[in-house]
Amino acid sequence: MTSEFEIIKRYFSDSSGDAVLGVGDDGAIINIDSSREMVVTMDTLVCDRHFTKDADPASIGFKSLAVNLSDLAAMGARPRHILLSITLPSVHEAWISRFRDGVKLLLDRYSVGLVGGDTTKGSTLSISVTAIGDVVTGTAIRRDKMSIGDDLWVSGIVGLGAIGLLVERELLDVDPTVKRDFLDRLHRPMPRVELGQALSGVASAAIDVSDGLVADALHLANSSEIALEIEFDKIPVHHTLSTKKYEAVVQDCILGGGDDYELLFSAPREMSRAIQNIATQCDLALTRIGKAVPGRGVTILDQGISLTRDFKKGFDHFDKCD
Amino acid sequence: MTSEFEIIKRYFSDSSGDAVLGVGDDGAIINIDSSREMVVTMDTLVCDRHFTKDADPASIGFKSLAVNLSDLAAMGARPRHILLSITLPSVHEAWISRFRDGVKLLLDRYSVGLVGGDTTKGSTLSISVTAIGDVVTGTAIRRDKMSIGDDLWVSGIVGLGAIGLLVERELLDVDPTVKRDFLDRLHRPMPRVELGQALSGVASAAIDVSDGLVADALHLANSSEIALEIEFDKIPVHHTLSTKKYEAVVQDCILGGGDDYELLFSAPREMSRAIQNIATQCDLALTRIGKAVPGRGVTILDQGISLTRDFKKGFDHFDKCD
Repeated sequence: MTSEFEIIKRYFSDSSGDAVLGVGDDGAIINIDSSREMVVTMDTLVCDRHFTKDADPASIGFKSLAVNLSDLAAMGARPRHILLSITLPSVHEAWISRFRDGVKLLLDRYSVGLVGGDTTKGSTLSISVTAIGDVVTGTAIRRDKMSIGDDLWVSGIVGLGAIGLLVERELLDVDPTVKRDFLDRLHRPMPRVELGQALSGVASAAIDVSDGLVADALHLANSSEIALEIEFDKIPVHHTLSTKKYEAVVQDCILGGGDDYELLFSAPREMSRAIQNIATQCDLALTRIGKAVPGRGVTILDQGISLTRDFKKGFDHFDKCD
Repeated sequence: MTSEFEIIKRYFSDSSGDAVLGVGDDGAIINIDSSREMVVTMDTLVCDRHFTKDADPASIGFKSLAVNLSDLAAMGARPRHILLSITLPSVHEAWISRFRDGVKLLLDRYSVGLVGGDTTKGSTLSISVTAIGDVVTGTAIRRDKMSIGDDLWVSGIVGLGAIGLLVERELLDVDPTVKRDFLDRLHRPMPRVELGQALSGVASAAIDVSDGLVADALHLANSSEIALEIEFDKIPVHHTLSTKKYEAVVQDCILGGGDDYELLFSAPREMSRAIQNIATQCDLALTRIGKAVPGRGVTILDQGISLTRDFKKGFDHFDKCD
């Protein structure tokens, strides 16, 4: 998110009405009744920004849902319904059919209903999705509840979305046996829906890694008004990448890449065993990579020494704005 | 809605999950608890399709909300929250500020919270809004509950949005004292939120007039699997337009124009007095213009003779696709 797009958020930040939590987290929390709250989120993917014109329509459909379900996951919510609005220059039935197949993979996997939306003719292909989920009242995981002393955890392996993009653009050579995996991580990221729900009541704060590990850690730290220290050598790295050959670019991808949709979350130390049990239950690595400390900002420690590179700046070639 | 865009609806019509009512009405109905249901709707406005590049940003903001609140009104729902996603080529703070002012006019008027959304950079200005409302369980007004013998009613005056467009394009000269009114009807249509809620329990079916009176009457008739007869001379016409001078073009605008956001609804004859009371309460003309009869389709009767012109075709110059 560049600063100019932050302007827009500022203009709309005072209009949340009676919502429990409005603009500024992965999703908004709306009171339903005494026992449940609704969590809602909305994301737009635009051609030439989030995917290329010739991308597989099934992957576009899949990812349009995935990024929204990931926001619900980061709040610990159970996904229930989505609305989908497509703007497209012309209608090709084969394209629509493939797109639908990608959408349905996630609808079916999580028993989510597509209940409405819109179709509009426009010069640029664009997809907006609103995802609606629910939680037991008071159990949504927010960004602003992290405390000093909490551990910082990450699910799976981050950086693979960015590496997938480099592989696709032929800017990075990787082991051919895992090339497909990296591309899949870019085009069909699996939202951590089960993990998010399991972390409700366990994690003190959470966010999905969409902007990049450092950028999203900073969102958590700023929302909770404390600082985070991340130990670089604790961050899990894909086994085919952990060699000197790739060191600089992999470091950039891990710390600044984004588009991973893993969950970054904090929890009190006494939750460590519960978190390991959740890792087993979800069949997903959960790794402690740092801790919340007094102060502001995010520090990356490499062998105890602070890395001071600007990881956002390093990724300008991704042309990311949000 | 052209037939090719109907294709998309067909592809997604079997995925509503456990919603009470899914794709195909003005909004979807989702069960909340035993006493309330949620009504959700999502519409996208795209530059050069729904507004021009140099349109007043406040009007774009206003209309983005209005079309969605109008869908909630057509379901009899009380609007509660919206999510708003803006895609724009670049950020100009003055533009955003004006846009926000237009959005806030309707947020404030109906005490609606803006709880989330997205901002994305993209080559075409586009706005998607999701509106969330609620109703007492079972009281949402649907399109498919009209019965033979029901009267057909319309609120206010239809055709003014289309006339506003002709005036803006300098294709029609109107009384200078009402020119501004017609342009306002096009750019800042007032959603019939109070009327929609008042009609809950009174109207048997309802839709908002967005595609055009005949087209939307046909949506009602098809959803309820019966026919509608509309008496042309019962349809209210703006007092400055009811002259021979304008006859043909006004007829086209009234029957085929769309973009009015008045409510078209049916009700049993015994509700007539209740409807007149609602008209007084909402300070809005409600006019009985026809009735539901056996059969299929919509017939426009002029002095008892059926008009057979294709009103959709007549409006191809509006370049409408949805």
